[in-house]
Amino acid sequence: MIERLCIIGVGLIGGSLARALRQAGAVGEIVGCNRSAESLARAKELGVIDRAETDPSEAVKDADVVVLAVPMGAMEGVFERMAPSLKPGAVVTDAGSTKGHVVTVARNAFGEIPPFLVPGHPIAGTEQSGVEAAFPELYRDRRVILTPVTETDREAVALVRWTWEQAGAQVEEMNVEHHDEVLAATSHLPHMLAYCLVDALARMEESKEIFRFAAGGFRDFTRIASSDPRMWHDICFANRTQLLKMLERFGDDLERLGEAIKSDDSGAVMDIFQRAKTARDRYRQIDPGSPE
Amino acid sequence: MIERLCIIGVGLIGGSLARALRQAGAVGEIVGCNRSAESLARAKELGVIDRAETDPSEAVKDADVVVLAVPMGAMEGVFERMAPSLKPGAVVTDAGSTKGHVVTVARNAFGEIPPFLVPGHPIAGTEQSGVEAAFPELYRDRRVILTPVTETDREAVALVRWTWEQAGAQVEEMNVEHHDEVLAATSHLPHMLAYCLVDALARMEESKEIFRFAAGGFRDFTRIASSDPRMWHDICFANRTQLLKMLERFGDDLERLGEAIKSDDSGAVMDIFQRAKTARDRYRQIDPGSPE
Repeated sequence: MIERLCIIGVGLIGGSLARALRQAGAVGEIVGCNRSAESLARAKELGVIDRAETDPSEAVKDADVVVLAVPMGAMEGVFERMAPSLKPGAVVTDAGSTKGHVVTVARNAFGEIPPFLVPGHPIAGTEQSGVEAAFPELYRDRRVILTPVTETDREAVALVRWTWEQAGAQVEEMNVEHHDEVLAATSHLPHMLAYCLVDALARMEESKEIFRFAAGGFRDFTRIASSDPRMWHDICFANRTQLLKMLERFGDDLERLGEAIKSDDSGAVMDIFQRAKTARDRYRQIDPGSPE
Repeated sequence: MIERLCIIGVGLIGGSLARALRQAGAVGEIVGCNRSAESLARAKELGVIDRAETDPSEAVKDADVVVLAVPMGAMEGVFERMAPSLKPGAVVTDAGSTKGHVVTVARNAFGEIPPFLVPGHPIAGTEQSGVEAAFPELYRDRRVILTPVTETDREAVALVRWTWEQAGAQVEEMNVEHHDEVLAATSHLPHMLAYCLVDALARMEESKEIFRFAAGGFRDFTRIASSDPRMWHDICFANRTQLLKMLERFGDDLERLGEAIKSDDSGAVMDIFQRAKTARDRYRQIDPGSPE
């Protein structure tokens, strides 16, 4: 059991972890820390946290485990604030979507990559945000990827693994760069496409009509464009190398599809669609959270 | 009531209309016509149709209303086959996703645009296909767009409108070109993006891992890539002008987003994401079928 847990950033991700650990009886006191005193008060009111602190250096004092669930752009500042007040033996992890960035800013903030830091990433979330959206089942049967580096203490990894398992997640390890490449492909690029598409349609003159005649497929396809813009802005820049690589690759593929249509290359178009359908149908079978 | 209805192409779209009209008591006999005798037998077995014909010229004899729910590429051939056997006064409509193409091939097949032809398009469907997937509620509260042309008989339009309304749909009229532009934006382009993305990932070396770590957002985003490749192949070419225009526009937008990330233009990236979120949230409120 974690005697004192500190969650920095009590939104959907941090709040759901708090709720899950509380429900599992895996935690004693939960200290929450947010920049906004208002949402912090709301978190306490909802029973998600026991104690509220707006200053990370206060919040982490005496915490056994500290979880950062803040936008990527806020990570470095939070690391800097907490560094002097962490108690010896405390384990720190984060829930950021790109791990290379976390490792880099941790090195900046701590002067080295601290052994007690276990970079992590729960592959879960909805397009909602805020503590009101938090629910204890968010991580059940979802995957959490930990990306320990050479410096990382294996006991710290074990504790973070245990923590996520208490929330119902399946924990796996991966190296930092591979994580960032996989996530650029499966998550960051799709978000760019959804944002870009909805923005393109919104800027079309007849956009009101356009949205009025959108069907169920459009609804599903664009759901992620309702995600928090600030969070995705930060992810964009934090994972820019891998993301730009994927954007370019995708842009080339899309151009090739356009060329195939233009040049009446029926076979090439069928090949793309058929390969995609086969892959998507196969994915449906391996996706642990799929209701289909 | 429609005494004799003929559905050509008894799959998800045609089969669901048959089931809905039967449930509403809006139809006497339903004659089904498919190229494949096997799926036709299945449709009869399931009670979706009363009588099975594999030849369109036989199937349409004595029909009061004929509905074509075949892939776009099959439309012209079906029109040609049915032309000599349609009974005087019969009304013909279709469920194709691009209307300019239907009008063109109808002109080819009939020598003119027949006044009894009401081009139509139900904005409904799932990523499934086949008569087994058909269900009577598919069109409930969904929109159906009719795109009559100058030649179209208004009484025929009224009958087709009534037919879709019996299935629970909201019927609207639009001109052909506008329909094709709107649909290229809200449906055809998103399908291209989903197919292209899943294909791109499937071709990546580590594709197995990639799909294993995909989250819920990816599942929703790529659901439409499980759609029938042949159907979408046909739509691609049938609506190529509007689709290529949208593909190009989107490609430019995506490139601009990439440039903004590359050049550290934080404001430009935030603008795109924020505009998209606002538009998507607004759409959520007007979407009649939205469960969110």
